[in-house]
Amino acid sequence: MINTFCRYPLWEVSKDLVDVAQGRKPADIVITNSRLINVCTKEIQDNMQVAIVKGRIAMVGDCSHCIKEGTKVIDANGQYIAPGFMDGHIHIESSMLSVGEYAKAVVPHGTTGVYIDPHEICNVLGLEGVKCMIQDSKRVALKTMVTTPSCVPAIPGFEDTGSFIGPNEIKQTMEWKEVVGLGEMMNFVGINASNETTHAIVGETLKAGKIVTGHYSMPETERGLNSYIASGVRCCHESTREIDALAKMRMGMYAMLREGSAWHDLQEVAKAITKHEVDSRFACLISDDSHPHTLINEGHLDHIVARAIEEGIDPISAIQMVTINCAQCYQIDHDLGSIAPSKCADIVFIDNLEKCHVTKVIVDGEVVAENGEYIKEIKDYVYPEWATHSIHIKDKINKETFIIPSNNEKETVRVIEVIPAKVATIERHITLPVINGSIAADTTQDTLKAFVFERHHETGKIGKGFVKGFGIKGGALAQTVAHDAHNLFVVGDNDEDMALACNELIKCGGGMVVVKNGKIIGKVELPIAGLISDKSLEETNKQVIGVEKAWRELGCTHPSPFMTMAIIPLACLPTLRLTDRGIVDCTTFSFVDLIV
Amino acid sequence: MINTFCRYPLWEVSKDLVDVAQGRKPADIVITNSRLINVCTKEIQDNMQVAIVKGRIAMVGDCSHCIKEGTKVIDANGQYIAPGFMDGHIHIESSMLSVGEYAKAVVPHGTTGVYIDPHEICNVLGLEGVKCMIQDSKRVALKTMVTTPSCVPAIPGFEDTGSFIGPNEIKQTMEWKEVVGLGEMMNFVGINASNETTHAIVGETLKAGKIVTGHYSMPETERGLNSYIASGVRCCHESTREIDALAKMRMGMYAMLREGSAWHDLQEVAKAITKHEVDSRFACLISDDSHPHTLINEGHLDHIVARAIEEGIDPISAIQMVTINCAQCYQIDHDLGSIAPSKCADIVFIDNLEKCHVTKVIVDGEVVAENGEYIKEIKDYVYPEWATHSIHIKDKINKETFIIPSNNEKETVRVIEVIPAKVATIERHITLPVINGSIAADTTQDTLKAFVFERHHETGKIGKGFVKGFGIKGGALAQTVAHDAHNLFVVGDNDEDMALACNELIKCGGGMVVVKNGKIIGKVELPIAGLISDKSLEETNKQVIGVEKAWRELGCTHPSPFMTMAIIPLACLPTLRLTDRGIVDCTTFSFVDLIV
Repeated sequence: MINTFCRYPLWEVSKDLVDVAQGRKPADIVITNSRLINVCTKEIQDNMQVAIVKGRIAMVGDCSHCIKEGTKVIDANGQYIAPGFMDGHIHIESSMLSVGEYAKAVVPHGTTGVYIDPHEICNVLGLEGVKCMIQDSKRVALKTMVTTPSCVPAIPGFEDTGSFIGPNEIKQTMEWKEVVGLGEMMNFVGINASNETTHAIVGETLKAGKIVTGHYSMPETERGLNSYIASGVRCCHESTREIDALAKMRMGMYAMLREGSAWHDLQEVAKAITKHEVDSRFACLISDDSHPHTLINEGHLDHIVARAIEEGIDPISAIQMVTINCAQCYQIDHDLGSIAPSKCADIVFIDNLEKCHVTKVIVDGEVVAENGEYIKEIKDYVYPEWATHSIHIKDKINKETFIIPSNNEKETVRVIEVIPAKVATIERHITLPVINGSIAADTTQDTLKAFVFERHHETGKIGKGFVKGFGIKGGALAQTVAHDAHNLFVVGDNDEDMALACNELIKCGGGMVVVKNGKIIGKVELPIAGLISDKSLEETNKQVIGVEKAWRELGCTHPSPFMTMAIIPLACLPTLRLTDRGIVDCTTFSFVDLIV
Repeated sequence: MINTFCRYPLWEVSKDLVDVAQGRKPADIVITNSRLINVCTKEIQDNMQVAIVKGRIAMVGDCSHCIKEGTKVIDANGQYIAPGFMDGHIHIESSMLSVGEYAKAVVPHGTTGVYIDPHEICNVLGLEGVKCMIQDSKRVALKTMVTTPSCVPAIPGFEDTGSFIGPNEIKQTMEWKEVVGLGEMMNFVGINASNETTHAIVGETLKAGKIVTGHYSMPETERGLNSYIASGVRCCHESTREIDALAKMRMGMYAMLREGSAWHDLQEVAKAITKHEVDSRFACLISDDSHPHTLINEGHLDHIVARAIEEGIDPISAIQMVTINCAQCYQIDHDLGSIAPSKCADIVFIDNLEKCHVTKVIVDGEVVAENGEYIKEIKDYVYPEWATHSIHIKDKINKETFIIPSNNEKETVRVIEVIPAKVATIERHITLPVINGSIAADTTQDTLKAFVFERHHETGKIGKGFVKGFGIKGGALAQTVAHDAHNLFVVGDNDEDMALACNELIKCGGGMVVVKNGKIIGKVELPIAGLISDKSLEETNKQVIGVEKAWRELGCTHPSPFMTMAIIPLACLPTLRLTDRGIVDCTTFSFVDLIV
């Protein structure tokens, strides 16, 4: 696969590299006195030098003859140097940050490349939204390699999204130079049922010679996993058990071991490596989803490498899992993933290997981060006007919108019960009062009213239901981060606050809002597609912390409850879900009535 | 890289694979009771089953549900199964066999894929000759992946070849679906001098996203090797010392450890693995050149794997070096190199792992070899008429042709002295008698007359010189296997026998001829390009044995002396060489006079 993410393609600068290695021309940079973490041979080589010119590595070894007038000498002072870290599967939208802000956050932690699956923005804005993220990425020294979202919508027929991706769209994007593969194929049901369209989506990727990334979350490693891999899926980040990861590696699938903000898989899945004497070349470390507070408090791949080491994986193997292994997974190892002649000069300095503490980062032969700070100037990128006006709701929302009419005195309804910090829900049947001809929320039974407004095409579709388990009283919560269709989702115990929350969100272009007794007490503004902030990491984080606090003020004690709320509309998870089209029984994949 | 060497591309059969793994359709083949050599995790998995359909692997594990009506069950009886072996660098012409005959010889030994560099035929017949070999390959179950010869002629300006390969030809062939990369870039001098054309040849390959294979034979692993690798060369089979192979792997270059008929590198280079605790993913095992007797008496990659094990490399690592490592080198691991779902069903059965004894070979889901025999029917392939008429010499050769006039009684001349079983030569200055006005051979000084006739374009160019060291008396030896230009080369102690040898060769279209006192006592007919036999492996071997015997009859005791003779015209090796243009001093790369 041709890599267009380096400053120059090799064929344009090969003679320069040779001239430098031969001592005929000066290197741009020579790193001296380093301990090279050699991910090719799994060794540490002491007292090494590296000569760089035109963004690539010209020589590794004694490079004193490459130092001439104009060469910048960087004394590593005995620190380790490793290839730039790469995250093999990440949704940048989860950070709520623009690519630029995200890069500023992660590059100082050693991340020089990310394989993004922009399926959140794609559900809202389609491929035009993906193009915006690509534009956004071009202003930063973070190689942003795109995998085209494979499952938009996630569950066709059960929700309305802003766009649709089919085999034709896949074929088209495979010609984009920024696209290196297909985003996580979540539809393992379709794959394993030999569904024509699902296989065509994979097929268009394979025909282009690109990589199909996976998502196989079943606790089954026999015929289900086999047939899923047989379709051409090359990697998967959904292992939660030792045997999942081990089975995948044995079947030649790259096991992407995940340690995200919400999913802490490593403790368990690292055992696939530590408890078995296996070649670990098919293992990678990835984050999937990182939230702002994780990026600020823990870091990114540096943190995950350190966690892997804590779990007993040897340090060089752990570094291989974010460098050469990832590069080989994406068949881009001729340019990325090792410190070797010809490769892009993406180099991370580490002063404490066990903790994977990064002190300096070079990307394409340029020092871009030092001591935890991104030091390169970043141009502004303003998302286009249309990308920040993605909330299109047919009718004005007011308290009357939330009337659920009934002629009875009370009604027994289906209620979605959430479980703190879990993805599954429980179906409950609860009898609720009817007040002024409308079925009402009932906080004595911890039951809130829940509405999903289609917000992409002004279809006027509204899904109506009830949720239980948040412990909320006297308010409402609304958000446009509502997977995967990202419609406008609101819950509350009274119609006035629900209407206020919705209208506040519509006004600011989307995000998350908390209302208490007629007053807005928390808000994260995410005007870009209703998903992404136009603010800095720090400001966004402050807003998120504010919303978490507001939830607690309303009585909810869950960890990150807005995340639990965000997946209530995600109809590919068990058991009961609410989309803009209604209540979905996700065990039978059918719509069910509100009233039992 | 899209692999067109399997029976079906994955996207055409992915639904079939899924249907079989899911138990909805019958497998074509299920292998039971096998010990799977898992090259992904470097483990042996006992009691494994493998289900195959449409030439690909649908499932690995318990495949009993895939056995239905029409499924062929192959009981492995506890034997090992490994992925099909691949040779990462081979010149089929060295075997003197057609691709079909070569395949019949090597497939039963477990070889299911070869990366060929057809630079011998290309020097004679150009890309049309390469196309013939590709056609030839299509009739056999041996995946024949072509690397376009990079150095035709080997040393421009010092010899006449039948063709020329430049950047344009490289660009053109990179569009051929059979071409996976560039053949060994022997011109490391040009690379390291930043020569424009040499870099353009590499560059056209890189632009096509294909693999550049190498040939760096210098005992230098610092700036020379660094700058050579920096140009984009990905692998190299020219390591002869432990430190060569180790340095290459450390620089992310695939070290292709060679054990060919003539070059026995393994004993030394295996130490790069066995004496260092390194990750061996960058090591491959290859043959480079195999002669008929090696293929018959020792085998091919099975023999080399066994040799690697003898040298202390653990068996699974050795198997990795002819499977997954080679596939990753060529970035074709999504289709080849492992026994895993989706991959081509190229599978080797082994009953003795230490000796790597192969009992059965499956290619594309079909049993093609059993108990050492290729059992699949092979269609005939007849090379086109023009390919078998490649000897085009301007003037008729007779004994007068060999007169080297002199008016003196004796002359002191430059003589090329050969060293048994070594590639280097020594320059000697020897005084020879002048008989009837012509400088004569002198067997009392072990010195033979040597002539190289340009044989491609009837230019009439003749290189004239003398060689020493063969111990020959009373005869002549001629051959058209004369690297790399493969002109007609003859040596002898009398002009009559030299003329007879040449004319006999011209008559039969090329090959090797031995004449003793006016009688032909040995001959290998190689009518295809003067390099390749149209006979079977066995018949060709018999002829080669006959020629070896004839050399001995004339007094030469060297091992395979025709090979030593074949490289006398190869002007990229030290010290003194003879081409059709004259005597070349290979230390200064200049022509020198015969007479001192």
